[in-house]
Amino acid sequence: MSKNEKNVEAITNRDVDFARWYTDVVKKAELVDYSSVRGCTIFRPYGYAIWENIQKSLDDRLKETGHENVYLPMFIPESLLEREKDHVEGFAPEVAWVTHGGQEKLSERLCVRPTSETLFCEHYANVIQSHRDLPKLYNQWCSVVRWEKTTRPFLRTVEFLWQEGHTAHATAEEADNEALMILDLYEELLEKMAIPVIKGQKTDKEKFAGAVRTYSVEALMHDGKSLQAGTTHYFGDGFAKAFGIQFTDKNNQLSYVHQSSWGVSTRMIGGIIMVHGDDNGLVMPPKIAPVQVMIIPVAQHKEGVLDKANEVMDRLKKSVRIKLDDSDKSPGWKFSEHEMKGVPIRLEIGPKDIEANQAVLARRDTGEKKPVSLDNLEAEVSNLLEEIHKNMYRRALKHIEETTGCAKNMEEFEKRLEEHPGFIKAMWCGDRACEDAIKDRTTATSRCIPFEGEKFSETCVVCERKGEKMVYWGKAY
Amino acid sequence: MSKNEKNVEAITNRDVDFARWYTDVVKKAELVDYSSVRGCTIFRPYGYAIWENIQKSLDDRLKETGHENVYLPMFIPESLLEREKDHVEGFAPEVAWVTHGGQEKLSERLCVRPTSETLFCEHYANVIQSHRDLPKLYNQWCSVVRWEKTTRPFLRTVEFLWQEGHTAHATAEEADNEALMILDLYEELLEKMAIPVIKGQKTDKEKFAGAVRTYSVEALMHDGKSLQAGTTHYFGDGFAKAFGIQFTDKNNQLSYVHQSSWGVSTRMIGGIIMVHGDDNGLVMPPKIAPVQVMIIPVAQHKEGVLDKANEVMDRLKKSVRIKLDDSDKSPGWKFSEHEMKGVPIRLEIGPKDIEANQAVLARRDTGEKKPVSLDNLEAEVSNLLEEIHKNMYRRALKHIEETTGCAKNMEEFEKRLEEHPGFIKAMWCGDRACEDAIKDRTTATSRCIPFEGEKFSETCVVCERKGEKMVYWGKAY
Repeated sequence: MSKNEKNVEAITNRDVDFARWYTDVVKKAELVDYSSVRGCTIFRPYGYAIWENIQKSLDDRLKETGHENVYLPMFIPESLLEREKDHVEGFAPEVAWVTHGGQEKLSERLCVRPTSETLFCEHYANVIQSHRDLPKLYNQWCSVVRWEKTTRPFLRTVEFLWQEGHTAHATAEEADNEALMILDLYEELLEKMAIPVIKGQKTDKEKFAGAVRTYSVEALMHDGKSLQAGTTHYFGDGFAKAFGIQFTDKNNQLSYVHQSSWGVSTRMIGGIIMVHGDDNGLVMPPKIAPVQVMIIPVAQHKEGVLDKANEVMDRLKKSVRIKLDDSDKSPGWKFSEHEMKGVPIRLEIGPKDIEANQAVLARRDTGEKKPVSLDNLEAEVSNLLEEIHKNMYRRALKHIEETTGCAKNMEEFEKRLEEHPGFIKAMWCGDRACEDAIKDRTTATSRCIPFEGEKFSETCVVCERKGEKMVYWGKAY
Repeated sequence: MSKNEKNVEAITNRDVDFARWYTDVVKKAELVDYSSVRGCTIFRPYGYAIWENIQKSLDDRLKETGHENVYLPMFIPESLLEREKDHVEGFAPEVAWVTHGGQEKLSERLCVRPTSETLFCEHYANVIQSHRDLPKLYNQWCSVVRWEKTTRPFLRTVEFLWQEGHTAHATAEEADNEALMILDLYEELLEKMAIPVIKGQKTDKEKFAGAVRTYSVEALMHDGKSLQAGTTHYFGDGFAKAFGIQFTDKNNQLSYVHQSSWGVSTRMIGGIIMVHGDDNGLVMPPKIAPVQVMIIPVAQHKEGVLDKANEVMDRLKKSVRIKLDDSDKSPGWKFSEHEMKGVPIRLEIGPKDIEANQAVLARRDTGEKKPVSLDNLEAEVSNLLEEIHKNMYRRALKHIEETTGCAKNMEEFEKRLEEHPGFIKAMWCGDRACEDAIKDRTTATSRCIPFEGEKFSETCVVCERKGEKMVYWGKAY
């Protein structure tokens, strides 16, 4: 499509002002609307449909791996939140407090859940008695609230949608393995969004309040900043001791359970936008796209065109998510609108195509168009969706490869950050002071310690001590 | 199964103490657990799985009929809640108020949504401009909070799960038709739970705060009390005027939209329990049951039994929701446990069955057992599930028919209520005072005015005036 056919209002150029480009895309692609509730956004049908596809995809995998869904209350009494010391310190400063119910002042404040470890622990103490009750592999789809000061749609909002898994196991090893297994599931989920990730362990500074170890998957956005796309936590038996979750083991001894928790949220939608989007708007990965193919009839007033378009839709809807735009807008307007929404394939069909027994397929990722025979349409469309997925993943991976580099000292570190925003690999002594120093000097933070980090330098990037661990660093959302 | 095989703890007899029987069932069937949050229950995996099946069933139908899912914030600023006068009067007394975010006192209180009309209206005012934007057929799956004093699992809780549909239309007729169409969808949904309903319009006294007309589906519980299982509302343009939701019509004139809203909740699970349950626990309607068939191997330690049971499961799992209980509990214990959970079919298979190339199917609804050839297992199971569904529906319908009767005066009314608890049909003059009088005297309330009510008496059941409308009355949950 030539630029002069662009009828929908233009958006900010991505490379001129990435933050404004982002805000333009979420609005113009009709993903969200703002509301009068500070920091909370409205998920419009197109935005929510993306979340539904993500949910379905992950929920199926969680069920296949033996997890069960539950639903716990949205309120947590203040005394319950305070039961685990590290946890309350991490969350109490940023919760919303309910103080009145109806006309009455409550005798104890309730917070709106920022996360539900404490409620799950209280429940587990009730329902776990014997080793026969283990493992418990529970998951919850819900919304949570964190009283953030600065908010941006999907990335950081006062209320957001997520899943939170909470599991209890007989042994430490099982609980840790669960946290690692789920990390793999998250990687697989992001792969469906054509988003490659770096996997690893968080430093103590960056770990979850109350966790022994936190693992994360980190994605790289177009502007070189990283996005923590999902985290899983191994808790040891700290929460179990605070909440008294004990079971009788096979030798009839009382033991504390070992636990994990893990979550991904609507934040991933922000990742999709910032990894794949371009100057024409959103580019949706086919496996998650609410609409995979949009049919746009050309000269739809001419006899037979709409009939043929409907016939094509009926054929294809068995295998793909497809819609037909037969509104009275001009084809050029429709092209721009569905481009803005990132529909992977536009299928054009008009009188000349019908005569030639063909349709034209236009790819959103590259803009390429090609005519295909109506005889092979199912196979052509399904192959093209697969090819688009692969191309988007390859492109995102290439971006990581091109912008990731090593820094042996802070001079190199700062130079890379300035010249090639992306992940920076650097050796670290393991001291919190050096981690703090990097943040103070550059605003970059440790993203994660990969499970198999190569050692390319002897000393810590900050100090003279031994470089114990290879860490990925970067500026982050 | 003989009574002496009942190994799980006995529950209260249903006809001795229905309220306690109910509480026993929700606990022993592992539907819910209590939490330290007053009035909020925990949906355990089995309880939540019922809700997921209900959701899936309704969500598919809503999408087929052109509705789209969205998600709006859980908070409503006090000033927004107050925008529509009748609405705020109905809801403000029973909401939970957030007054603090983090360490700060909020400048305006936020309530946790008791329902989201106000938020939808604010959003609609933003996104509706032209007749081209209509109709808007939005639905939201979420939880809502109402600060109830007395609570019971599923029936009345401080927080509950539901869907709320909110639609905007160009004309009054379209909006009213939507409310009526959704009422039919709700009837169809309850039919899947083998629950027959009475459909009709609510009296002005019982209608929703802010509605012009409220419609409902009413089900009858085993104890003769009725349960309002779902409601739909026609709003006219009242909310549209309060929120300024206007559109340019085809003649380029500004008009207000006409609206509807409608909802069903986890309350329906209470209905399933109270319509179908018996002295052995829950009886799940097959179409909604989380597990439709439970395989219980007999003498499972004997060679070949577990292999055969697994083979049967692999065959059947393509067409039904099936599980195999190969735990080390005794078969008698397992029988009772899955009976308590109301699994529609128990499939027993042991060495003698294998030898005879058969399995035994036991129906939860009647307790009948019959051997069936393994050759026809798929068809036998699927036919039996259909037969169980039909039998449960017939039984529930018979209960309504047997306990519904007419009353021409208050003496007959009170006698029926005492002797045959159920729906009472009575003529009503239309005066609120007579409606109040019935409630004061009997605690029964108007359930609904059926769309085609026969006229069996000239005068109002209370006063001497003309009996304008035939109304269903009853005690209600």
